[in-house]
Amino acid sequence: MDQIELMKELHVPSGKKIILLVMDGLGGLPGKNGKTELEAARTPNMDTLSRSSMMGLSTPVAPGITPGSGPGHLALFGYDAIKYQIGRGVLEALGIGLELGPESLAARGNFCSLDPASGEITDRRAGRIPTEECARLVEILRQITIDGVNITVQPVKDYRFVLVLKGEGLHDGLTETDPQKTGLKPLPVKPLRKEAEKSALVLNEWLDKAFELLKNERPANGCTLRGIATNPNLPTFKEVYGLNACAIATYPMYKGIARLVGMDVPDAGDTIESEIKTLREKWNDYDFFFFHVKKTDSYGEDGNFDAKVEVIEETDRIIPDILELGPGVLVITGDHSTPWALKSHSWHELPVLLHADNIRTDPVTEFGETACIMGSLGHIRHTDIMPLAMAYAARLTKFGA
Amino acid sequence: MDQIELMKELHVPSGKKIILLVMDGLGGLPGKNGKTELEAARTPNMDTLSRSSMMGLSTPVAPGITPGSGPGHLALFGYDAIKYQIGRGVLEALGIGLELGPESLAARGNFCSLDPASGEITDRRAGRIPTEECARLVEILRQITIDGVNITVQPVKDYRFVLVLKGEGLHDGLTETDPQKTGLKPLPVKPLRKEAEKSALVLNEWLDKAFELLKNERPANGCTLRGIATNPNLPTFKEVYGLNACAIATYPMYKGIARLVGMDVPDAGDTIESEIKTLREKWNDYDFFFFHVKKTDSYGEDGNFDAKVEVIEETDRIIPDILELGPGVLVITGDHSTPWALKSHSWHELPVLLHADNIRTDPVTEFGETACIMGSLGHIRHTDIMPLAMAYAARLTKFGA
Repeated sequence: MDQIELMKELHVPSGKKIILLVMDGLGGLPGKNGKTELEAARTPNMDTLSRSSMMGLSTPVAPGITPGSGPGHLALFGYDAIKYQIGRGVLEALGIGLELGPESLAARGNFCSLDPASGEITDRRAGRIPTEECARLVEILRQITIDGVNITVQPVKDYRFVLVLKGEGLHDGLTETDPQKTGLKPLPVKPLRKEAEKSALVLNEWLDKAFELLKNERPANGCTLRGIATNPNLPTFKEVYGLNACAIATYPMYKGIARLVGMDVPDAGDTIESEIKTLREKWNDYDFFFFHVKKTDSYGEDGNFDAKVEVIEETDRIIPDILELGPGVLVITGDHSTPWALKSHSWHELPVLLHADNIRTDPVTEFGETACIMGSLGHIRHTDIMPLAMAYAARLTKFGA
Repeated sequence: MDQIELMKELHVPSGKKIILLVMDGLGGLPGKNGKTELEAARTPNMDTLSRSSMMGLSTPVAPGITPGSGPGHLALFGYDAIKYQIGRGVLEALGIGLELGPESLAARGNFCSLDPASGEITDRRAGRIPTEECARLVEILRQITIDGVNITVQPVKDYRFVLVLKGEGLHDGLTETDPQKTGLKPLPVKPLRKEAEKSALVLNEWLDKAFELLKNERPANGCTLRGIATNPNLPTFKEVYGLNACAIATYPMYKGIARLVGMDVPDAGDTIESEIKTLREKWNDYDFFFFHVKKTDSYGEDGNFDAKVEVIEETDRIIPDILELGPGVLVITGDHSTPWALKSHSWHELPVLLHADNIRTDPVTEFGETACIMGSLGHIRHTDIMPLAMAYAARLTKFGA
């Protein structure tokens, strides 16, 4: 019996609502005056809150592991990110806002250049064609039809596009078609298991038609498919926790991941202000709110210490608005660290603040990576956060007699 | 290879004895002056001990999970409480002091009221008949005999009784007979697997005879059976740790759980004084002592901060007596938290004190939840405690070459 099964069995109703406030890429590294981005930020509201909260540090997936957005969020939602993996095609589709039903197959596509005579790949990225050219070629590929299959093709960026197929009997377990080097022909899709045979037939039919349509284009006269995957059909928040869950996010990727676990995803605009407005409007309709702040991660990726600090300070200013709603449990953390010094996601622990009744206090009086070492939560895992939030919201009954 | 298998392989003899002192429901929440029950208690002996002990905080089963007495103790004894679940019928039988052999089937029984004409249940608890009436009806049910089966029926409280069947080929995997609402007839017992078919036949025969014997009684003219379970046949302390283990406890439930893992359970009277006397008397006969203090939990359940403090102080006063015996390892903790503020078991971590030679010290100079945040044990799980105690008692050999 894993944690998901245990939660399914133990959850009970309660009037206490849970807010999970995620600042994407929150965790940082020492910069100015030896302080991290969070420590350098003026966060009077979170610091005050820390005095009546349990503080700690959380590892997203496992020590040393740098998670992508998918595993980072799944772990925050309480799902073992190693057991429940979301295929890259699915993440790419979610990232551009495509919805995936239960029988959807999604793939990342690359336009490439082929030698017209031999059919061998001469450039795996077709000279990194601009996004507009990608969009024009995608328009051409939209002519392709296959009986009984609903086909969506969407440009992403430069030479990259997404292909989504919906239809009965489409299962994953398929090889990729990119041979990974030039001088070789694109490979056919091969099924890795019996259930995937129909998918392979359909994808190869689509590829044949695509090559035919692209043959006179230059420089992109071919394409490859990678990361072909189906919707992982995760158990939903309602099933696992008995929670009516709402995701408040501004970027398609995070809305998509939230949809995968059955959260409702209302339009929340483009800013933190429009997000807090949405939280207020939806407050009475849900038990659980995933509130996502994106730009901490973006500025971390840019290596922009000051701009990341500003987003943290902006988030701090909405804390009184959140508290005014009266959540039973408020958790503040991030999905993974994106330290300015690395300009990328990293494996470092995340500071965590858990505000609720019936907590054990600790000596921590500010929200920061160093201070949280002394927190009463100790060192936890992201997958521990939801069970703890559920417990403090009086939503779990006793295990065993 | 799980932890139990590892312990079976690595244990070696040693002259060092281990005492596991369990204050039931020890963990608390801030009350008077922001202190927990343990922090408010005057515990000069444990505080002194903390200076020569490793301190820490332990999660009983998993973060957020509130354990019952069964899982809490099994975890303390080093058994994965999610893997080794004890059925409710078994716990109820243990709770009233019934011994369960390897081929015992135990069920919780409820007396109920039936409509004499239709046989449908009109009251699932027979108007909550008093315990004396329950005892009188149980006396009637004791007339029932079944070939080859040894039958025990015992009153518990109000409308509740326990039924234990012993005989060859009795296995669990059986449905309950309580339809969970009035207006429906009691259900027959059904086997959920082939091995349980004989048990179902025997239980249905017993139920038929019980209904016949009860038919003219009022208001309790029927009964239902729930939580039908067998002895989980846990690997014993002798097998797992090579320990001759003795349980010193005053309440049947804890004596019963100790018996499930093969501990001897001498009569230890009703008080902490009689328990310490028993410990002294049995000192030379065993390697391991589970010493259980019940009333910390009882007063936690009552929400009685002061009375829980007093039991902790009373326990503190026996520490010199315990140390005088010269244990190699003394662990002091609880099975689960029972904070006065919640009046129930909870999911909060337990403070842990591990006193032994060859320890790493830490800055903790008192035994309390907040102080233990700084302990050298860190945040552990209950299942970590026995391997640590075994190691400090020089009872585990090297793993691998």
